[in-house]
Amino acid sequence: MNFTLKILGTASALPISDRNPSAQVLDVRGRLLLIDCGEGTQVRLRQMGLSFIKIEAIFISHLHGDHLFGIFGLLSTMALLGRTGKLEIFAPRAFSSVLKFFMSWFGEGVKYPIEHHSLDCKEPVEIFSMKNLTVQAFPLNHKVDCYGFLFKETMPQLNVKKWKIEQYGLGVAQIASAKRGEDITLSDGELIPNAELTYLPYEPRSYAYCSDTAPFEELPLWVKGVDLLYHEATYPQEMTPQASARFHSTTIQAAQCAKDAGVKKLVIGHYSSKYPDLSLFLNEARSIFPDTVLSKDRDVIDIPIKKYE
Amino acid sequence: MNFTLKILGTASALPISDRNPSAQVLDVRGRLLLIDCGEGTQVRLRQMGLSFIKIEAIFISHLHGDHLFGIFGLLSTMALLGRTGKLEIFAPRAFSSVLKFFMSWFGEGVKYPIEHHSLDCKEPVEIFSMKNLTVQAFPLNHKVDCYGFLFKETMPQLNVKKWKIEQYGLGVAQIASAKRGEDITLSDGELIPNAELTYLPYEPRSYAYCSDTAPFEELPLWVKGVDLLYHEATYPQEMTPQASARFHSTTIQAAQCAKDAGVKKLVIGHYSSKYPDLSLFLNEARSIFPDTVLSKDRDVIDIPIKKYE
Repeated sequence: MNFTLKILGTASALPISDRNPSAQVLDVRGRLLLIDCGEGTQVRLRQMGLSFIKIEAIFISHLHGDHLFGIFGLLSTMALLGRTGKLEIFAPRAFSSVLKFFMSWFGEGVKYPIEHHSLDCKEPVEIFSMKNLTVQAFPLNHKVDCYGFLFKETMPQLNVKKWKIEQYGLGVAQIASAKRGEDITLSDGELIPNAELTYLPYEPRSYAYCSDTAPFEELPLWVKGVDLLYHEATYPQEMTPQASARFHSTTIQAAQCAKDAGVKKLVIGHYSSKYPDLSLFLNEARSIFPDTVLSKDRDVIDIPIKKYE
Repeated sequence: MNFTLKILGTASALPISDRNPSAQVLDVRGRLLLIDCGEGTQVRLRQMGLSFIKIEAIFISHLHGDHLFGIFGLLSTMALLGRTGKLEIFAPRAFSSVLKFFMSWFGEGVKYPIEHHSLDCKEPVEIFSMKNLTVQAFPLNHKVDCYGFLFKETMPQLNVKKWKIEQYGLGVAQIASAKRGEDITLSDGELIPNAELTYLPYEPRSYAYCSDTAPFEELPLWVKGVDLLYHEATYPQEMTPQASARFHSTTIQAAQCAKDAGVKKLVIGHYSSKYPDLSLFLNEARSIFPDTVLSKDRDVIDIPIKKYE
């Protein structure tokens, strides 16, 4: 039942010794979703013991090299490993040209279908679903066509309280009805509201990925209340003009978004290579949003399940 | 006066945790030549403290991804670092399409000239020279158009023995003439052969790179007597049929080439991912050619200068 973020790379455009460019894996109960694919992603997957075959879909935020250049090696390696299952890639429209280039020059051994779904939206839209999970894309505010992603566990089926079953002598059909969220009418005509009978077995978890972007008004609304928000923080506050000119965010802006959105936890990354020491980044972000953590390459951030009963 | 090989990657098609795909740097007195450019090359350059700006030329053996997919990130990073100096890339003809793809989608910030020289030869030809060094390309025996490279220090100018200058009372013009390798006629008509007057200040050093290739007859002749030979050894002997089918070499075949060529030292690499432990590779190669070493990612192999006088 895990819902775990695995950090593969935390650099921005210029990688440094211990920071690969952007890539993450969201592990949802053992099924892997790759988010961005900077150069070196495949070796990081190996280093973190993540199976290439279990990657079901890839989400590419935008077509800058530091979010993309690992895709060629990864697709090649999947072919060499004998993948046959379809791979879905969600990426901006122009990715079709990248894929065409790859397939025409390096696609000879690729025996698995690759399906590119073009991202093109002005507000959040659902782009993918699998058991227990849906994914939305939403536009970000960057120099080029760029999207964020919201990964949400679907609402689980309601559980019926055992002692209520006994109290009212509920039958199989009534229990099924209650699990669907319906109120129950007893044989004597009494109406029992669903809320009295049932409870959520667990709270659905959510993760939002926002890289690369300058701040904009709608973003906190679109990621409202998520359990974990990844927001790029390319620069510390002293570089606010540069961040603005390059359509990136500072620590303060990332933290303000987390605060405005009322998220539970913020993780920042995509650091400028000029800052080998990141304590400034952490201190600044925490001054606005205390529950902030720095991402480091190879970090594992688990979102534990909250079970009820 | 260093002449030093720096190993950036030693994996074959499937990289593993501690082995990047193929890339090397030959450091010739501080000027850097990059040989192949597998994914992750730019981070390895950082890890090994190698300057991106000092790379004067790139030599790509063939257009398989594990020798190439780092080029996109490297060219982008050179642009971000503000490179202005021309970059020469020696690669098979089809590289022009790869470069065209890169420039059309990711070349916006590339302000330095990139010159692609197409490799196309049936026997060794000189393709590049700089102060103190020439580079030859020669064809290898692989599935696709593939080339090896021979890096040779140029012959240094002869030194004239000081005590011979005194003995014969040589003047400036005579010394210059002797340095050019000419015999000297003294004022009394006596002819002094050049060999009596001069000596080589140092022995020119040489390095040959051979990846990927199946064995073939001419190869030992083309790399004859080099100080250091890198020869791929994708497989141990037990995989000889697979090596042959895939146009690769085994440990034994790499070592036999070194032996037939009479090289001074052999370094092997491009290991199959099936073998995390490489002691078998070393033992097999040494059974044929004792002066063999394994390459490991981040290894530095210096070829010391041999000075005379």
